[in-house]
Amino acid sequence: MEGKVISTTVGLDRVQVTDGFWKKEIALVRDTVIPYQWEALNDRVADAQPSYCMHNFKAAGSINQRLEHEEGYVQPVFTTNGFCVWPEQQKVQDEKFYGFVFQDSDFAKWIEAVGYILQQYPDAALEAVADGAIDIVCSAQQPDGYLDTFYIINDISRRFTNLRDHHELYCLGHLIEGAVAYYRATGKKKLLNAACRYADCVAAHIGPEEGKLHGYPGHEIAEMALAKLYEVTGEEKYRDLGLYFINERGKKPYYFDSEHPENADKEEDGQKLRYHYHQAHLPVREQTEAVGHAVRAVYLYSGMADFAGLIADEALKDTCGRLWDDIVQRKLYITGGIGATHLGEAFSFAYDLPNDTAYAETCASIGMIFFAQRMLKLCPDSKYADIMERELYNIVLGGMGLDGTSFFYVNPLEVVPEACHNDSRKEHVKPVRQKWFGCACCPPNLARLISSIGSYVFTETDDTIFVHLYMGTHMEKQLKSGTARIDIQSGFPWNGNVTIQVACDVQETFTLALRIPDWCRQYQLTGIDSAASSSCQQEEKGGYLYITKVWHSDTLQIEFPMDIQVIEADSRVRETIGKVAVQRGPLVYCLEEADNGKDLHLLKIDEDAVFETHRMQIATESVVAVKAQGWRQQAASKNQLYFAHERARYERATLTWIPYYAWANRGEGEMQVWTRC
Amino acid sequence: MEGKVISTTVGLDRVQVTDGFWKKEIALVRDTVIPYQWEALNDRVADAQPSYCMHNFKAAGSINQRLEHEEGYVQPVFTTNGFCVWPEQQKVQDEKFYGFVFQDSDFAKWIEAVGYILQQYPDAALEAVADGAIDIVCSAQQPDGYLDTFYIINDISRRFTNLRDHHELYCLGHLIEGAVAYYRATGKKKLLNAACRYADCVAAHIGPEEGKLHGYPGHEIAEMALAKLYEVTGEEKYRDLGLYFINERGKKPYYFDSEHPENADKEEDGQKLRYHYHQAHLPVREQTEAVGHAVRAVYLYSGMADFAGLIADEALKDTCGRLWDDIVQRKLYITGGIGATHLGEAFSFAYDLPNDTAYAETCASIGMIFFAQRMLKLCPDSKYADIMERELYNIVLGGMGLDGTSFFYVNPLEVVPEACHNDSRKEHVKPVRQKWFGCACCPPNLARLISSIGSYVFTETDDTIFVHLYMGTHMEKQLKSGTARIDIQSGFPWNGNVTIQVACDVQETFTLALRIPDWCRQYQLTGIDSAASSSCQQEEKGGYLYITKVWHSDTLQIEFPMDIQVIEADSRVRETIGKVAVQRGPLVYCLEEADNGKDLHLLKIDEDAVFETHRMQIATESVVAVKAQGWRQQAASKNQLYFAHERARYERATLTWIPYYAWANRGEGEMQVWTRC
Repeated sequence: MEGKVISTTVGLDRVQVTDGFWKKEIALVRDTVIPYQWEALNDRVADAQPSYCMHNFKAAGSINQRLEHEEGYVQPVFTTNGFCVWPEQQKVQDEKFYGFVFQDSDFAKWIEAVGYILQQYPDAALEAVADGAIDIVCSAQQPDGYLDTFYIINDISRRFTNLRDHHELYCLGHLIEGAVAYYRATGKKKLLNAACRYADCVAAHIGPEEGKLHGYPGHEIAEMALAKLYEVTGEEKYRDLGLYFINERGKKPYYFDSEHPENADKEEDGQKLRYHYHQAHLPVREQTEAVGHAVRAVYLYSGMADFAGLIADEALKDTCGRLWDDIVQRKLYITGGIGATHLGEAFSFAYDLPNDTAYAETCASIGMIFFAQRMLKLCPDSKYADIMERELYNIVLGGMGLDGTSFFYVNPLEVVPEACHNDSRKEHVKPVRQKWFGCACCPPNLARLISSIGSYVFTETDDTIFVHLYMGTHMEKQLKSGTARIDIQSGFPWNGNVTIQVACDVQETFTLALRIPDWCRQYQLTGIDSAASSSCQQEEKGGYLYITKVWHSDTLQIEFPMDIQVIEADSRVRETIGKVAVQRGPLVYCLEEADNGKDLHLLKIDEDAVFETHRMQIATESVVAVKAQGWRQQAASKNQLYFAHERARYERATLTWIPYYAWANRGEGEMQVWTRC
Repeated sequence: MEGKVISTTVGLDRVQVTDGFWKKEIALVRDTVIPYQWEALNDRVADAQPSYCMHNFKAAGSINQRLEHEEGYVQPVFTTNGFCVWPEQQKVQDEKFYGFVFQDSDFAKWIEAVGYILQQYPDAALEAVADGAIDIVCSAQQPDGYLDTFYIINDISRRFTNLRDHHELYCLGHLIEGAVAYYRATGKKKLLNAACRYADCVAAHIGPEEGKLHGYPGHEIAEMALAKLYEVTGEEKYRDLGLYFINERGKKPYYFDSEHPENADKEEDGQKLRYHYHQAHLPVREQTEAVGHAVRAVYLYSGMADFAGLIADEALKDTCGRLWDDIVQRKLYITGGIGATHLGEAFSFAYDLPNDTAYAETCASIGMIFFAQRMLKLCPDSKYADIMERELYNIVLGGMGLDGTSFFYVNPLEVVPEACHNDSRKEHVKPVRQKWFGCACCPPNLARLISSIGSYVFTETDDTIFVHLYMGTHMEKQLKSGTARIDIQSGFPWNGNVTIQVACDVQETFTLALRIPDWCRQYQLTGIDSAASSSCQQEEKGGYLYITKVWHSDTLQIEFPMDIQVIEADSRVRETIGKVAVQRGPLVYCLEEADNGKDLHLLKIDEDAVFETHRMQIATESVVAVKAQGWRQQAASKNQLYFAHERARYERATLTWIPYYAWANRGEGEMQVWTRC
C-alpha cells in the first residue's frame, strides 16, 4: 500500500457547522474562551497565574527598537519545572522575559482559534484586536526573521543551542498553524509572512548542509505545521525542512548529545528516558511502539502521516499505522485518554492504564485527533474516525467546563477528592476544573480544535465525499460540471438519527461514504431505493457505507441505534478486571457522587439489570443520563482494619450514569468510569 | 490511667532463644549479615554502592591527629537525594567525607547487632574486630565530645546549624543504642563513654537555657536512646535532654524556621509538608494523627512512650495510645507495613493503602515493634503484642532474603515485575531483594532487631511474667526467695503448640500472663488443673490469660489452633474491595507466580472452597503452604482494547499461597497478597 493521500481535508471555507450541540460549543469558544484567553495572555485574569505572553512580545519589540541590549544584564533562573523567574521581583513593564520558554505559543494558539472563528463568524472588533496583537508580535521579529522572545530578550547569541528543551521550533510550529488559520480567515498576510520568515531563518541554521545544525525539535509540531505551510504557499523549502526534521530524528550519534555533551555518557537508563521522552531513540521509520511524552508523540506521528502522504512514503505510512495500533490496542483509555503516567506526561507500558492516577492530558487527545484525521486521509478506515469521535465527545468536551472558563489538563477515570488533596502521588489529578494554567497548553488547544471542528467532518476525493463525523453541517463540493450541496442534520450525541440532504445543480455520479460507527451493530438506511435504481450501488468497505449514484435532490435517513452498551476491557488491563463501563453512542459514561452518593467503590452493576435513559439537567446542559438497578455493598467496618471475611452483603441501589464529558460541573465529588460487576 | 510503667523489659542477659526457627534467623545474622555488613561498612562488597562509613571515621580521626583542616578546602556537592559527592573523582583514601550525612549510623547499627550477638554467643574474634572499629570511631571524637564525621571533616564550625536535615542527633541516638548494647555484652565502656561524651556535648549546645539552641532532632531516635542511656547510667541529665527534645518539638515559632528562614514564609502547603514530615507540626501531646515520614514517626512515638513511663506522664501516654490506634486502625497494611506512600516515605491519609505502590519500609515496621514493646510496658494489652507479632513474622522476616545477603527496603503487597521495570511511578518497588543500599538503613536495622529478638518475648513486674511472643526461650526470674526458670517450646509459626515448663527452687506464688493471639478464637490449656488446686487462679484480661499459683515444677501445654483464615479489610480501604487475603497463625500469605502462573489478577478465590495446608520447600526453608481450589478467569482479548461485556468465564484452578515473608526467593515473578473473591 503506497503512502499516498487518498482523500483530502475539506476546510472551513467549504463547511459550515449548523449543529445545535456543536454550535453551542463553538459559541462558548467564540464568546467566552477567546475573550478570556486574550485577558489571560495580557495577565488580566484575577486569581490565575500570569501568562506574560504578550508582555514578552512587547518587551522583545521594545528591545528591537533600541537595537541593543540593556547594560548590566542579569541571567534569569529557572524553577525545577522550567518556569523562568527573575532573581528579584521586577515590574512586568520591564524588558525581561517571564514564564515558560514556550510562552510565545500561547499567542499562536489563540490567533489560530481566532482565525477559525473569524472564518465562520466575521467580527470586525475581534479582527481589530487580533491585528493589534499581530503588530505586537511582528514587532519582536528580528531582521533575519528569528522570532522567539525567550532568546530575543535574554541572549540572542545563544539561540538554537538547546533545541531539545527550549521550544524555539515548537513556537515556530504553532506560529505557522496560527498564521495559516488567520490568513485563511482574513486573507491578511502579515503574520503568515512573519511565520515564513521565521521558518526561513530556521532553515538557514538547521539542515543537511555542512555548517548547519543537524538538529530537530525537542517538542514536535513544526513537522505538521511545515506540511501545512507548504500546502498554503507551495514553497518546497518548507516541505523539505519538515521532512528533514522527520528524517534526522533518532539518528546516531544523537543530535541532543552534541547539544548536551554533559549527559552523553550517562548510563543506559537515563538515556532511555532522555531519548524515548522525545521519540528520538530511533529513526522514526524504525519505531514500533508509542513512547515518551504523549503530546509530543502524537504531534510527531501527525507530521509523519502528513509527510507519508506528501512524498508517498510507504515505510513512513506503515510506521504510522503500527504506532496507531500500538496506542489504540494497548495504551488508550476508554475515554480516549492517552499518556497513562504523569511522570514525563508519558505513555506507560502496554495495558498499564490506572484510572485514579491517569494523566490522559487533554492536549494529547487533541493530538490524537490530528493523527486520526491524517490517517484517514491516507487510508479511509473507520477505525481512525471511531477514535476521533471517542476523543472528541469524551476528553475534548470534558476538558472544558460547561462555563467555558475552567479546564482540565489531566482527565482521570476515577476521582476521590480526598485522595487528590491528601495524596501527593495524585497531585496532578484535580477533582474540579481549574481557571487557567501557568503552562496553558490545554485551554487554547481546546479552543483551536473546537473552533475548527467543522474541518474534521469530511474528507474527499474527486468523486467521493467521506463523512467521518455525524454533525449538523452544510458543505459544498465542486463537481466536474456543477456543485453539490450536502446538508447533514444529526441527533448526535443524544440519538443516532442522521438526515443527509443532497442537492445538485447537475446530474452527476459521485459517492457518499458514510462511516458506520464501531458502537453501532445495526444501522438503518432509508431514502435510497437501490432496488429501484440499478444505477445506485451500495457497498460496505473499511467501516464505510459507500453509496454511489447519480445525485440530484435526495434525502437519506440513516439511523444508528444508540443502545446502552456495557463494556469491558481486555483482561490484560489489570486496573479494570472485574469492572465494566457504560457507553452509549459516542459517549462514555461515569458515575458521580452527586447522583450516587459517596463511596462509589461499593457500587456494583447487576449484570441482568435493564439500563434505561432519561434526560437530566447538568448546569446549562441537558444530557441523556443512564439509570439501572444495581447494588451497594454494605460497608464492612468492625473497629479494626482487618477481620474474618464474610460473604459481602448488598442492598439495592439505583445507579445513575452521566456522560463523562459533563462530570465535575456540580462541585467537587467522587467520580468513576469503571464499576464492579 | 497514669502513664507509669506497669512492666519492664526482660533483656538478653536473662533470656536465651532456644527456638529452632529463630535460632536459624539469628545464626543468619551472626554468620552472614554481620560479616557482610562489616565488609559493606568498609566498602569491600562488590557490586554494591560503597558505604564510606568506616572511611569517614578514619578520615575524621586523621584530621583530628593533624588538629587542623586542609588548605584549599573545596565544598562538596549534594545529589538531589542528599548524597554527598565531590566535584572530581578522588581516592577514598583521602580525608574527605562521602555518602549520606547520616552515614556514621551504619557503624552504630552494626555494633548494636554485634553487641546483641556477643551477649548470646561470645566470640573473641568478632569482639576483636568490634574493638578495632570502636578505636577508629573514638579516634574521630573531638575534645569536647562532638562525634559526627560529616561536620568534623567538612566544617566543624557549622555543626548544629541544620538539625532538621543533617542527622547529627540521629547519629547520636544510634551511637547510644549501639554503645549500650556493646557495653551490656562485653562490659567494655569505651564506646559507652564516647556516646555519653557526645550526649554531653549536645546538651551543652541544645537545651532550655538562654544561649543554647532550642532545637530538636529532624530525624527522631535520640529520644528513646537517651531514655536507655539514662536507664544504663542513672544520669538524669540524659533523661532531661531526651525529654527536652520531646517537649520542645512542634512549639511555635518553629525551631526549624529559625534554622531555615528562607522557607519560613512559604505558603501553607509547603509548611504542611515540612512540619508534618518531621512530626513537628504540633506539640507532641496535641498530635492525634500519625503523619509524615513513617520511620521518624514511630521512632518518636517510641521515645514518647519511654518518657510517658519514665516521668509518669498521662497526657503523653494517652497521646501514644491515640497515635497507635490511628496507625493500627487506619494506616496499617495487613502485613504490618506502614507508610503507604514513597513520597516522603510517609503515612498517607486514612484507609489509603494501595498494594502495588506501597512503600511500607522495613525500618518503619521495626520501629513499630519498638513502639509496641514500649506500649506493652505501659499497658499490658495484647493488641500491642499482636501487632509486634504481625510485624515480626511478615515484614521483618520478609525484609531479608533466605540467603541473609539480600534485603527489601520497600515491602509491596502486589508486584508485577514488568510494572517495576517500566513504570517510573513504581521505581521504588523492587521485584527481588537488593544486595545493599547506599542509604543502608534497613539491613542493619533488621540485624539489630533479629539479634535482640529474645528481649521482646517477655516483660515482667515483681510478681508477673508476661509472655508476649511464643518463641522457644529460656528465661530466669529472680523471686523474693529464689529463682524461677521458665522454658518455652513453641511450634510457631507453623503450629500453635506451646509448652511452658516452670521450675522453681522455692515454692512461691507468681503469675504467668500468656498472650492470647488475636487470630486464635479458641485455645486449649492443659497441665494446669485449676479445679484440683484452689490456689490456682485463671483470669482472662486485656488479651492475656493470667495464671496465678504457687509454682514448683509445672508443665503447661497450650494450643492455639492455627486455622486458615480468610481475611477482608474495612470497606473504606478502596484497594482491597472485593478481595480477601489468607492468614494462618501469625503469617500473612501471598500468591506467587512460581506456584500460580502469570496474571495473578485473573485468579479468584472460591468462597466455598476447603483450604488445606501442606509443606513446601522454598530455597533453604520448609514452609507451611496453603492450597485451595479456586478459579482463573479466562483471558478476554479480542484484538481491541474495549468490547461488549460478556459474563466472565472461569476455569478451575488450584491456588497455592506461601507465607508472605518467603516471597521473592525463587527469582523474579508476580506476587499478590489480596485476591478477588
